[in-house]
Amino acid sequence: MNAIDRLETLFAKLPGIGKKTARRLTYHILDGDPRYARVLAEQLANLHDAIKRCSICGSFTETDPCPICADPGRDGSVICVVERSPDVRIIEESKEYHGRFHVLGGLIAPLEGVNPRDLAFGSLLNRVRHETIREVILALNPTVEGDTTALYVQNLLKDFSVEVTRLASGLPVGGDLEYADRLTLSRSFRGRVKV
Amino acid sequence: MNAIDRLETLFAKLPGIGKKTARRLTYHILDGDPRYARVLAEQLANLHDAIKRCSICGSFTETDPCPICADPGRDGSVICVVERSPDVRIIEESKEYHGRFHVLGGLIAPLEGVNPRDLAFGSLLNRVRHETIREVILALNPTVEGDTTALYVQNLLKDFSVEVTRLASGLPVGGDLEYADRLTLSRSFRGRVKV
Repeated sequence: MNAIDRLETLFAKLPGIGKKTARRLTYHILDGDPRYARVLAEQLANLHDAIKRCSICGSFTETDPCPICADPGRDGSVICVVERSPDVRIIEESKEYHGRFHVLGGLIAPLEGVNPRDLAFGSLLNRVRHETIREVILALNPTVEGDTTALYVQNLLKDFSVEVTRLASGLPVGGDLEYADRLTLSRSFRGRVKV
Repeated sequence: MNAIDRLETLFAKLPGIGKKTARRLTYHILDGDPRYARVLAEQLANLHDAIKRCSICGSFTETDPCPICADPGRDGSVICVVERSPDVRIIEESKEYHGRFHVLGGLIAPLEGVNPRDLAFGSLLNRVRHETIREVILALNPTVEGDTTALYVQNLLKDFSVEVTRLASGLPVGGDLEYADRLTLSRSFRGRVKV
């Protein structure tokens, strides 16, 4: 196996990168400026050293606590619970939310071997117990696993004076009734709001 | 910009990798085994040092001449002319061809600033002049640029006693007439063979 094959094989291990794409990427890099390959190599080698998990919210960060947990300007009385660290980025980019976050590290999925003890529920409970939390917003995907996890958090926090809410589910903005599936339609009926 | 953003930005420079895919790849690597990131980094850093171009055919190789040019078992009287180095791999995998190769490094495309002097025609001419070549097979894409380049090679070699052929163009095997475009259909008519 030569250096081209080795790089192809490594690229093909990435999600969504098949054998043909892996080859195209390899030859693209080989055809291109060696400096690009060198900088990419440096960033990859450096990634796991530079990035750790925030000891408060569990999101990936270069500093601990992360910039969001450390920011006194954020609303510390609201925690937005997400499945994974990239979800924090997606929500931050919407500029819609100004509270803190909590990364579970997954959703409850017993069939895939993901049980509550594998997720960051203990640290969430601790935060609700020791910080002054008014509301916990569940920003979990509207899937079976998301529903199960939402129910679990609701139950976990039922003895605390904290409001547990979940992001609205319904028709996507700009979408068309015609293309909405039955479940989405049913949710948007149940979640209908007064105009 | 932190280490995550930097890696995302680098990934997004690759062909076919958009901003969202770049992010997914970055978090996948971050979530995964640090050894994978390290090995990928090493292979990237090593790539341009390990791989050079064959001084005879111009394809990417770890040794010079490349294994194909150095193999005495290959038919040295036939040269298959391809656009880029990965094409050599694709043809090799078909196990259909047992001659040598010549990599042009592109196709003639004046509108994109690719002129004959940018491509490896000089070395092709030298090979036809000094080696004993019986046939030059043009394995170029059936596109306007491929046609232009084929015509150019034909003209370049017209004073030599070498047969210039081109891969057949027509309906793909397993394809359906219904889905063939007009040009493909027209080519497959012109190239029809006696059954």
